[in-house]
Amino acid sequence: MSAALPKAPEATMRVSALHGVGDLRLTERPVPVPGRGEVLVRVAAVGVCGSDTHYYTQGRIGPFVVDRPLVLGHEASGRIVGVGEAVDPRRIGSRVSIEPQRPCRSCTECKAGRYNLCPHMEFFATPPIDGAFAEMVVIEDDFAHDVPDSISDAAAALVEPLSVGIWACQKACIGAGSRVLIAGAGPVGIIIAQVAGAFGASEVHISDLSDERLGFARAHGATHTHRADSPVDDLGVDAFIDASGAEPAIRAGISAVRPAGSVVLVGLGADEAVLPVNLLQNRELVLTGVFRYANTWPLAIRLLAEGRIDLDCLVTGRHGLADAESALTSGSTPRSMKSLVMPQL
Amino acid sequence: MSAALPKAPEATMRVSALHGVGDLRLTERPVPVPGRGEVLVRVAAVGVCGSDTHYYTQGRIGPFVVDRPLVLGHEASGRIVGVGEAVDPRRIGSRVSIEPQRPCRSCTECKAGRYNLCPHMEFFATPPIDGAFAEMVVIEDDFAHDVPDSISDAAAALVEPLSVGIWACQKACIGAGSRVLIAGAGPVGIIIAQVAGAFGASEVHISDLSDERLGFARAHGATHTHRADSPVDDLGVDAFIDASGAEPAIRAGISAVRPAGSVVLVGLGADEAVLPVNLLQNRELVLTGVFRYANTWPLAIRLLAEGRIDLDCLVTGRHGLADAESALTSGSTPRSMKSLVMPQL
Amino acid sequence: MSAALPKAPEATMRVSALHGVGDLRLTERPVPVPGRGEVLVRVAAVGVCGSDTHYYTQGRIGPFVVDRPLVLGHEASGRIVGVGEAVDPRRIGSRVSIEPQRPCRSCTECKAGRYNLCPHMEFFATPPIDGAFAEMVVIEDDFAHDVPDSISDAAAALVEPLSVGIWACQKACIGAGSRVLIAGAGPVGIIIAQVAGAFGASEVHISDLSDERLGFARAHGATHTHRADSPVDDLGVDAFIDASGAEPAIRAGISAVRPAGSVVLVGLGADEAVLPVNLLQNRELVLTGVFRYANTWPLAIRLLAEGRIDLDCLVTGRHGLADAESALTSGSTPRSMKSLVMPQL
Amino acid sequence: MSAALPKAPEATMRVSALHGVGDLRLTERPVPVPGRGEVLVRVAAVGVCGSDTHYYTQGRIGPFVVDRPLVLGHEASGRIVGVGEAVDPRRIGSRVSIEPQRPCRSCTECKAGRYNLCPHMEFFATPPIDGAFAEMVVIEDDFAHDVPDSISDAAAALVEPLSVGIWACQKACIGAGSRVLIAGAGPVGIIIAQVAGAFGASEVHISDLSDERLGFARAHGATHTHRADSPVDDLGVDAFIDASGAEPAIRAGISAVRPAGSVVLVGLGADEAVLPVNLLQNRELVLTGVFRYANTWPLAIRLLAEGRIDLDCLVTGRHGLADAESALTSGSTPRSMKSLVMPQL
Repeated sequence: MSAALPKAPEATMRVSALHGVGDLRLTERPVPVPGRGEVLVRVAAVGVCGSDTHYYTQGRIGPFVVDRPLVLGHEASGRIVGVGEAVDPRRIGSRVSIEPQRPCRSCTECKAGRYNLCPHMEFFATPPIDGAFAEMVVIEDDFAHDVPDSISDAAAALVEPLSVGIWACQKACIGAGSRVLIAGAGPVGIIIAQVAGAFGASEVHISDLSDERLGFARAHGATHTHRADSPVDDLGVDAFIDASGAEPAIRAGISAVRPAGSVVLVGLGADEAVLPVNLLQNRELVLTGVFRYANTWPLAIRLLAEGRIDLDCLVTGRHGLADAESALTSGSTPRSMKSLVMPQL
Repeated sequence: MSAALPKAPEATMRVSALHGVGDLRLTERPVPVPGRGEVLVRVAAVGVCGSDTHYYTQGRIGPFVVDRPLVLGHEASGRIVGVGEAVDPRRIGSRVSIEPQRPCRSCTECKAGRYNLCPHMEFFATPPIDGAFAEMVVIEDDFAHDVPDSISDAAAALVEPLSVGIWACQKACIGAGSRVLIAGAGPVGIIIAQVAGAFGASEVHISDLSDERLGFARAHGATHTHRADSPVDDLGVDAFIDASGAEPAIRAGISAVRPAGSVVLVGLGADEAVLPVNLLQNRELVLTGVFRYANTWPLAIRLLAEGRIDLDCLVTGRHGLADAESALTSGSTPRSMKSLVMPQL
Repeated sequence: MSAALPKAPEATMRVSALHGVGDLRLTERPVPVPGRGEVLVRVAAVGVCGSDTHYYTQGRIGPFVVDRPLVLGHEASGRIVGVGEAVDPRRIGSRVSIEPQRPCRSCTECKAGRYNLCPHMEFFATPPIDGAFAEMVVIEDDFAHDVPDSISDAAAALVEPLSVGIWACQKACIGAGSRVLIAGAGPVGIIIAQVAGAFGASEVHISDLSDERLGFARAHGATHTHRADSPVDDLGVDAFIDASGAEPAIRAGISAVRPAGSVVLVGLGADEAVLPVNLLQNRELVLTGVFRYANTWPLAIRLLAEGRIDLDCLVTGRHGLADAESALTSGSTPRSMKSLVMPQL
Repeated sequence: MSAALPKAPEATMRVSALHGVGDLRLTERPVPVPGRGEVLVRVAAVGVCGSDTHYYTQGRIGPFVVDRPLVLGHEASGRIVGVGEAVDPRRIGSRVSIEPQRPCRSCTECKAGRYNLCPHMEFFATPPIDGAFAEMVVIEDDFAHDVPDSISDAAAALVEPLSVGIWACQKACIGAGSRVLIAGAGPVGIIIAQVAGAFGASEVHISDLSDERLGFARAHGATHTHRADSPVDDLGVDAFIDASGAEPAIRAGISAVRPAGSVVLVGLGADEAVLPVNLLQNRELVLTGVFRYANTWPLAIRLLAEGRIDLDCLVTGRHGLADAESALTSGSTPRSMKSLVMPQL
């Protein structure tokens, strides 16, 4: 452990932990000690994701059950304040965006470059791994990515959902001239729209039930908007990316894709869906899903630093740790895009 | 038109035409005249496909309706007996396998090498285009592929379903060492199993409801067999290829695929299916379908000529044109694999 | 032939034909008659390419020898004034960019979507096929691509070199965030720089011997410029694209590429070059070349119409047919970028 | 360190170390202690590679200089006799093939699945990293790959060059029906020939100067042989793989490739070579090199276990550690294919 170890006054820290459905508690915990290859980060901002809210309201996501106190939050930024063994101490002081995953680095998936699919993954805020609603967190050195000062703490935290958007657009083969349809004008849909533009797309269509959200989308990345109940099967887009998780939107989106086009499922909905397999077959569409991301942070930070993506526009609320509950419950209106928890407030 | 034009005695020919549901009639038609770039083929063998039977029993497949007499049959071989303008007359006499499609060659799909997705496609035995239950057919020069004498008429006809198998294995990224699961041990499933082997697969699993079919599959390409009702979700195969069209088989097959593996839908079933989208997402599976094939004949013929694929083993019946109805209705038992119509009988 | 056949006064037309080295003659020829599937185009603008100049000064390029009068020019735009059989007569009046190639559509390459590699290709201004230094040309319907009025005649002609740039950037896998080095700040290098930007590249480096050209490049697409004699091996770019044809530039460019990066050779130089195979091996670089292009016109026109590419800035001279010689010989100074022949002047 | 630590009698071991050009010495060294995540392997067999001989005769390879005693040998098999912290002690007793590299697992290349290009790589028998001409070596747990008893110690050692062959065939896109030309019928060329066959290639051409080697090649994987001085430019193969390192062979091989085919450079020769760039460009060939391999061991072991590759046929000599010099110098005749050092002899 480096000499930069936080001093005694910081030996404990505040975290906001979920003790059960709807039971969020501000508690004290020991400041974690960075192990070999790790850094200690003082958390600046944490975005609230739908999965955080889902754990808060349901106590589980599929097989992942909150059966002991869990710190939520996996979209995080901060500043390195300590380093473990074998880490360059000059990293202390760096502003970083946290890639909140810890793959094993040794399995078939990791060694093939698909570490997001590592069966031994430890991921922030996924039981039993704690997340970032905390004053401090540790993360492996190479998963704490430097950001320039031109990127705000909020944007640095939101590199996580930006990575989802990049991963989705990569899987959808978006490139110069692409025509893409996105279902769902929430934060992820709008980020995907912006990424599609940065990837060179010519037309970025987005659909949603809310006119207000569509208006926001048009102002922040979409070139065309569609009411979710209007037909899109004549679009013939190169790719459809679902950010809604809603079966009707997925079905409509698939019908909008040209032969040999792509379908990428990002939004989480029910475990099963009725899909038009005849269209998938007759048009030889390629359908896949995204599960987090791999190797996206460098590109995400570059696009942000170049001003080609605007994440700050998504922030609609900032809350201290003591008020994390408000952040978790604010996402239920069309007007609310992205709430942040700011642990140092 | 070349000097090799068939003489007067052949100015008409017999065809077996479908006049309505269950109404197959042996009739006389003029021998077709090969146009510019076309060849005239004396048909030797025609495989019966499920789609032929479907037209016979239902009168339609989706939007394709038999509303005037339709000649069925699209798996055909024969010998060139005449050539149109701009075709080398030395092709006369060649034994050929017919690739039964006529793409426009000018649209986006054709020029991108995906001519199977050509929106202007004219495909044998698909209303209103006639097929090969006939003494003679015309086809464009480059869609009549030479076969060596080591390939039987039957096998040359069955290059069509073999092409489906090749196309499926290509989309499933089968290669050396692959582990693959195939659902459905009918003719297409068994062909896919053989192709997977020729592509270097190490394990070729196949599932079916019929023990008899599984036994046949094991003798002709499969390395492992599974009763369709036994669980396969622990297999962790690299690819699942559905040749059953049955939703339960598709769902089970998807559960058997390792992360980042492939799912290819070949079998035709209902227009819609309930699919486990959570698995597609969490494992980032890549799902697609095959719609016919493109550029597969040369490889198919090479694999056959090298003895790496055995299609003759699939033939369970041979019928003359007058007896085409028997060929169409023989496919209803596990024992029956592939019936042929032999127009020259 | 349609009723729109040009009338008697146009039954002959002027062309500028190369009769031998340095022997360009303005002559009269019959107006060509569009055959089945073809359109007749009144030529508006023709860009002069290095290959035109090479035929003019050397009388040959490799095995292609000017042994009878050859009309030069293969970068052409115009307006459809007549159509052949099987072409929609409503195309008459359309402003078009000409894709100056006529592949066979039947060979392995064509059917695989690589029609640029068709061994039976007939390409404008390549012996014995005439080009577009003429009042009128015929081309197949689908190789005359509609352009909107926002695209000038000059830009519509220069879609041809733009296609080279697109093809090169596609082969170099340029995408969002890419860092690319281009050697040669002539017209093709500058077009590649612009295309790289439209494809989302973050850094577009270009090298040249001429400061004047580098200045022009920086104003029109490059983000960084390098004197050709300065070292670039520390760049670690994702891709190097050579538009110089100069062995030293190619060697320097290869040294600038990161492991697993791309090298694409566009410029034509000597038939052989001394290449650093140790770098290609140790870094597992992927090196390839471009030979014309396939399926690039739609994207090229889209990028132009969206204002993401500026080709008009390259035009440094306009000449009538009678003055085609000036156009061919004007390319020898750094100040001259692209000369046009305007057959209707 | 596990309880399975080798006992006192093995506290030192014999190694054969290169002290300078031609100066190989049998010396005693401490038995290495496996660290966290490592295993200790009692070495059974070590193949001699051209690079070992090169270090022996030249004292360097490019920038890698033998400036202190270096243990050679990187093609190794053995049995696990001890494990370090965090390794399952049940691995003790396993027969393993050693993947002789230690990437950092944290850099861009490692995380992208290209760990062979890791700039921090520590590779056996590459200064200053010792190799396997030793009684014992340590290697990271996941780089010691279990082999079944059906694979001999010799073959388990030669999984290393087999991996080179697999990597080369993967980069050359060899698959069912491929036609491939290999230059050089030494051990690596013959392994590539066998791998190409296992990948489904239809024609495996090989060229060499030695009729004896060609005869051997034909008996062990090649379907066609060519004298190195006979022309091959009419072959039109899908891929050319060089295993000779000889410029004339590379040039001839490139001329033998069909349009859009592949060229893969495996053999090490001079740092530079005169290449026919006009062919690379006009045919849009894709040329690359192999630098070791990544993720190849599992497939290699599967192909061996299935009997689809025969490596034992290559072994032409076995030598004890004390006789390692003979192994290093035996490779100079056509009759000698692969010498092994057997440290336990």
